[in-house]
Amino acid sequence: MVLDRLKQVTQHVTGTAPRPHPFDPLSGSEIESAVALIRQEHGSLHYNAITLWEPRKAEMLTWLADPNHTVRPHRVADVVAIGRGSKVYDGLVDLDEQKIVRWEFTEGVQPLITMEDLQIVEHVVRVDPKVIEQCGIIGIPKEDMHKVYCDPWTIGFDERFGNKVRLQQALMYYRPHVDDNQYTFPLDFTPIFNSDTQEIIHIDVPSIRRPVNQAPANNYHPAAIEAEGGYRKDLKPINITQPEGVSFTVDGRIIRWQNWKVHVGFNYREGIVLNNITYNDKGNERGIFYRLSLAEMVVPYGNPEHPHQRKHAFDLGEYGGGYMTNSLALGCDCKGAIHYMDASFVNRAGSSETIKNAICIHEEDAGILFKHTDFRDDSVVVTRGRKLLISHVFTAANYEYCVYWIFHQDGTVQLEIKLTGILNTYSMNPGEDTHGWGTEVYPGVNAHNHQHLFCMRVDPNIDGPLNTVFQVDAKTGPGEVGSAENKYGNAFYAHKTKYTTAKEAVSDYDGSTSRTWEMANTNKINPYSHKPVSYKLVSREVPALLPKEGGLVWKRAGFARHAVHVTKYEDDQIHPAGRHVPQSSGEPSAGLPEWIEKHGDTSIENTDIVLWHTFGITHFPSPEDYPVMPAEPMTLLLRPRNFFLKNPALDVPPSYALTPSQKATLLGGFKGTDGTDKASVRV
Amino acid sequence: MVLDRLKQVTQHVTGTAPRPHPFDPLSGSEIESAVALIRQEHGSLHYNAITLWEPRKAEMLTWLADPNHTVRPHRVADVVAIGRGSKVYDGLVDLDEQKIVRWEFTEGVQPLITMEDLQIVEHVVRVDPKVIEQCGIIGIPKEDMHKVYCDPWTIGFDERFGNKVRLQQALMYYRPHVDDNQYTFPLDFTPIFNSDTQEIIHIDVPSIRRPVNQAPANNYHPAAIEAEGGYRKDLKPINITQPEGVSFTVDGRIIRWQNWKVHVGFNYREGIVLNNITYNDKGNERGIFYRLSLAEMVVPYGNPEHPHQRKHAFDLGEYGGGYMTNSLALGCDCKGAIHYMDASFVNRAGSSETIKNAICIHEEDAGILFKHTDFRDDSVVVTRGRKLLISHVFTAANYEYCVYWIFHQDGTVQLEIKLTGILNTYSMNPGEDTHGWGTEVYPGVNAHNHQHLFCMRVDPNIDGPLNTVFQVDAKTGPGEVGSAENKYGNAFYAHKTKYTTAKEAVSDYDGSTSRTWEMANTNKINPYSHKPVSYKLVSREVPALLPKEGGLVWKRAGFARHAVHVTKYEDDQIHPAGRHVPQSSGEPSAGLPEWIEKHGDTSIENTDIVLWHTFGITHFPSPEDYPVMPAEPMTLLLRPRNFFLKNPALDVPPSYALTPSQKATLLGGFKGTDGTDKASVRV
Ligand SMILES: [Co+2]
Ligand SMILES: [Co+2]
Repeated sequence: MVLDRLKQVTQHVTGTAPRPHPFDPLSGSEIESAVALIRQEHGSLHYNAITLWEPRKAEMLTWLADPNHTVRPHRVADVVAIGRGSKVYDGLVDLDEQKIVRWEFTEGVQPLITMEDLQIVEHVVRVDPKVIEQCGIIGIPKEDMHKVYCDPWTIGFDERFGNKVRLQQALMYYRPHVDDNQYTFPLDFTPIFNSDTQEIIHIDVPSIRRPVNQAPANNYHPAAIEAEGGYRKDLKPINITQPEGVSFTVDGRIIRWQNWKVHVGFNYREGIVLNNITYNDKGNERGIFYRLSLAEMVVPYGNPEHPHQRKHAFDLGEYGGGYMTNSLALGCDCKGAIHYMDASFVNRAGSSETIKNAICIHEEDAGILFKHTDFRDDSVVVTRGRKLLISHVFTAANYEYCVYWIFHQDGTVQLEIKLTGILNTYSMNPGEDTHGWGTEVYPGVNAHNHQHLFCMRVDPNIDGPLNTVFQVDAKTGPGEVGSAENKYGNAFYAHKTKYTTAKEAVSDYDGSTSRTWEMANTNKINPYSHKPVSYKLVSREVPALLPKEGGLVWKRAGFARHAVHVTKYEDDQIHPAGRHVPQSSGEPSAGLPEWIEKHGDTSIENTDIVLWHTFGITHFPSPEDYPVMPAEPMTLLLRPRNFFLKNPALDVPPSYALTPSQKATLLGGFKGTDGTDKASVRV
Repeated sequence: MVLDRLKQVTQHVTGTAPRPHPFDPLSGSEIESAVALIRQEHGSLHYNAITLWEPRKAEMLTWLADPNHTVRPHRVADVVAIGRGSKVYDGLVDLDEQKIVRWEFTEGVQPLITMEDLQIVEHVVRVDPKVIEQCGIIGIPKEDMHKVYCDPWTIGFDERFGNKVRLQQALMYYRPHVDDNQYTFPLDFTPIFNSDTQEIIHIDVPSIRRPVNQAPANNYHPAAIEAEGGYRKDLKPINITQPEGVSFTVDGRIIRWQNWKVHVGFNYREGIVLNNITYNDKGNERGIFYRLSLAEMVVPYGNPEHPHQRKHAFDLGEYGGGYMTNSLALGCDCKGAIHYMDASFVNRAGSSETIKNAICIHEEDAGILFKHTDFRDDSVVVTRGRKLLISHVFTAANYEYCVYWIFHQDGTVQLEIKLTGILNTYSMNPGEDTHGWGTEVYPGVNAHNHQHLFCMRVDPNIDGPLNTVFQVDAKTGPGEVGSAENKYGNAFYAHKTKYTTAKEAVSDYDGSTSRTWEMANTNKINPYSHKPVSYKLVSREVPALLPKEGGLVWKRAGFARHAVHVTKYEDDQIHPAGRHVPQSSGEPSAGLPEWIEKHGDTSIENTDIVLWHTFGITHFPSPEDYPVMPAEPMTLLLRPRNFFLKNPALDVPPSYALTPSQKATLLGGFKGTDGTDKASVRV
């Protein structure tokens, strides 16, 4: 690590920085270099996104196989820019050749809303006469307009306005004091903002008016806690330290840890992207995943009253999980020895900006990895596990999403998401009925029912790119109780269904059969089990999409209709709800439904495929979730099945080991990791 | 803590030990005192179990409400003893009155198999001529009989032998070397052992013989790892220390931590029993659970070939999760500051024996408890969580079960079970087909399909004993897409079904509706949400019981047929598969089915009830699980819903907090828990 640092410093000083890895995100200077080229040809534009146009897979696989003797994939910038009149341009800039290789005006789409786009709205709202008028009606005098706030959301889709004009809806709040939690004081009307002209073009006003909440503030900042008796004083510290540093090495953005190797990318949209994940299996570096990311999400709210149907944020596609990422510069989100990575983006004006410490990489103790005691003599082996977490936290207006990609020593990759932050709220009058569409979490505060549905994109590379997906259901064996073949009725087995086309692979979760999905390489058979090497998706938080078929959310969030989709790999199929999500009507449904409609009969057997998995939770709020929500975790596992010859973590040093013969001879056992001869203590 | 210890030492020296709490397990001297009384009246017996006969609830609630002015419940020993001819006696001994208050000969039952019962079998097997003969047939010469091992299991139920005679089946293995993992060398025949006469009465021999495995050993002990290249050397230490000690207090067996109070009991059967769990809600000590335990489990194997149908261990009811508990005397299973509790049991001869450090109580860091950043100005609060774990680990022959009862600061109680140890294995010939009933995890080693199904017993006390259970399903709202009431199709809500009788409450899991169950007190309404205070069971690992209706497992493990049962509270209904499980035929099905058959129409609404929840996993083995299995976790949550007025953890000191006004004025923010003024660093 020290040598790595020294190398970096030297390179910085001498200007001999190594060429970026083809998977590396664009650097600040690469971003600005792309902007300079575009400016030259197309003049002044607002920049929406400039991100790595990832190397085409065929070319990249060739390069990865032999980087020294093949052509290095070019660095290419994928650009979204906006001109006057909300005109959207999609472009590609080849940075190696310093030229624009694609430049298209794209009609009828709206690219995502950036943080800068969001920040403008509140200022406009506060001085708009129509907004001031509405505030007056519900009890906010115009001299208090500086106490009015808004969370600007994309409009989602509103058929009255279509998608020709770039719009945001302003969810309105009030703060009696600047430090008050505004979600206790939601306002009942919703201005519509034109991002191009920076004007309020319409206000949705409900038929029943709701004066601003008169309840006392409900805060969680230190002064509020002090006023209610102060912080608890009975927590003694737990110190987690790594005096010798971390157990992983960092080579550019490639992390090596416990036989794992992974390239850590990041983009404005998906946040963390993990590429070329391999496992060193006794000297043999075996491919497992070519690419893993959280590709999209949607948070539909369940209140059918207008205009709440518009509340169904695609936090990645409409705002960008990367753009909204917290800077962990203060280092207070994690414990132990942390390695951080920054993230660079383009701003509206075309300069690059950096989120310091956007990605956190650290290890944690993982409790018992394995243990077995022989009941005859108490001979035992017990080994503690370790895990590696690659994480970021993003703030989507009211909510926080903490995303942890976790690598385990036993070959498992886990995705854990913790949900925290604040409920989206709407105003209600005293005594008003929620009609079951929400919960009054505090007087005058209606938190609507909603779902958090995430789509994980898995590009498997199980011992190579030719993979096949099987659905696995636990099923009872044939034969009734009493029959010769199943006399006692206890027969059961794993029923495997091979998906041969994308249309066949559209599938839902089935809890009763403990359904899992195996990504297998049928060309490579485990010599012991005689089954194909595979990784199994084990995911149990898989609610059905509750918005109905044919409805707005169903149309726009096609990926969320089913738990699993499988498609044949295509370089440009990255975004399961489409490339430009805001104001998409869902007619036709972009992304997955479109691809499957077009190529649903193409074979997905023994070929390069992508598995899309939608999971999440249905959230019926309660007062415990307010004013700030205790983290709610959800998790899924990608587990090796028939991939290894045995438990790949057997060589992790045990905390304690004593064999029967050691026990019998009263000789010392294995020395524990703390250096003491534990057997001699024990026997 | 120091004072506590001093008090204990003083009491020990002066002999003025305080009277046990009525929930305390029987002490060694109480056990021996019961034995002395029984011996006087009934002479020589083998003791199977002597455990606390828990105070009757009505009496106990009265005492708990006012311990100083009500009669203290008597200490009563619940006794199971075995006389000659496998005669089973169930008795109660009142220790306060020093008399036997009940003594019954119970016909047609077999109490559980103790560790002592298990230990005998291997010795008998090794010298039995019929066993020696069978060993010879599959290639083990008689001079190698010391290399033959067996895991004795209860016979489960075998209709050929019924339940008049106390039987065990010996699952046979071989160890070329004493330190070899025997599960690589399973033998193909199964002796039946009579526990009363200590003889082999029968041997089940398969029609196809399978010579003992000739594959090399597959071990995980240090010498085996060294022979394959040694332990990995790239793990740097993670130190977890609590220099100021733990954050909980211990008063006898009552633990107080972060507003929680819980009495930690333990018995030979269920292991940890948590009683009288309350939460101090701003000075108001509110009841949540009267009693929580893992009450039963069953592990059915899915191979229908005789005699594998007998492999369906009830590890708690047939062996005892307490009896099989590991001593953690070496302290190497957990990190940080640990408080241990011992466990005392009776042995066969009637003396008391103690497992040192049977229960581990410790805290762990729990990551982000809550966080919110205001996207306008990066004002933020981030607070780390802490959890309290009360755990034990038990070894059920080949498998290890690590049971963690986890208390969270947000009011959540979590049950986590980690499964590790070694697969149960059976022999197979080279090239033999598993027929899908198992996996060849190593040459010659067939690991059969199986399920691990646990039954958690929840005796809720949600603000008092009068509780009601509701099934909660996420459902789409009425009205088709386009209708006035649901124009965009996005309406959805929590559909609640009240269970009014035990028969109605028999219910399965439904993943598609994200089904949960609420234990509510309908007499107490949350003033904000206007909904009853409740705790919600959130459990996602809920496979269907795969053995078929009417079959052996289905009959014997009635509790496992459904995810949830609810019964009206009865003092004697503790064991959902019955009090004496081994050799029960399941005709009629003991425990839950019997109780519901008898009292299924009694109201369970707004009364004292018990909820029984069956959860677990279906396990299709793979080579990665062998020779010792990486821990597989499963978990469930009991979460407060409408129980608190707000997030009850708001007063946990934050790692970092900065309000908008602090940010704006560039003044210092809240001092972080590490003492630095972080705001001034940040702004
Ligand atoms: Co939510
Ligand atoms: Co298992």
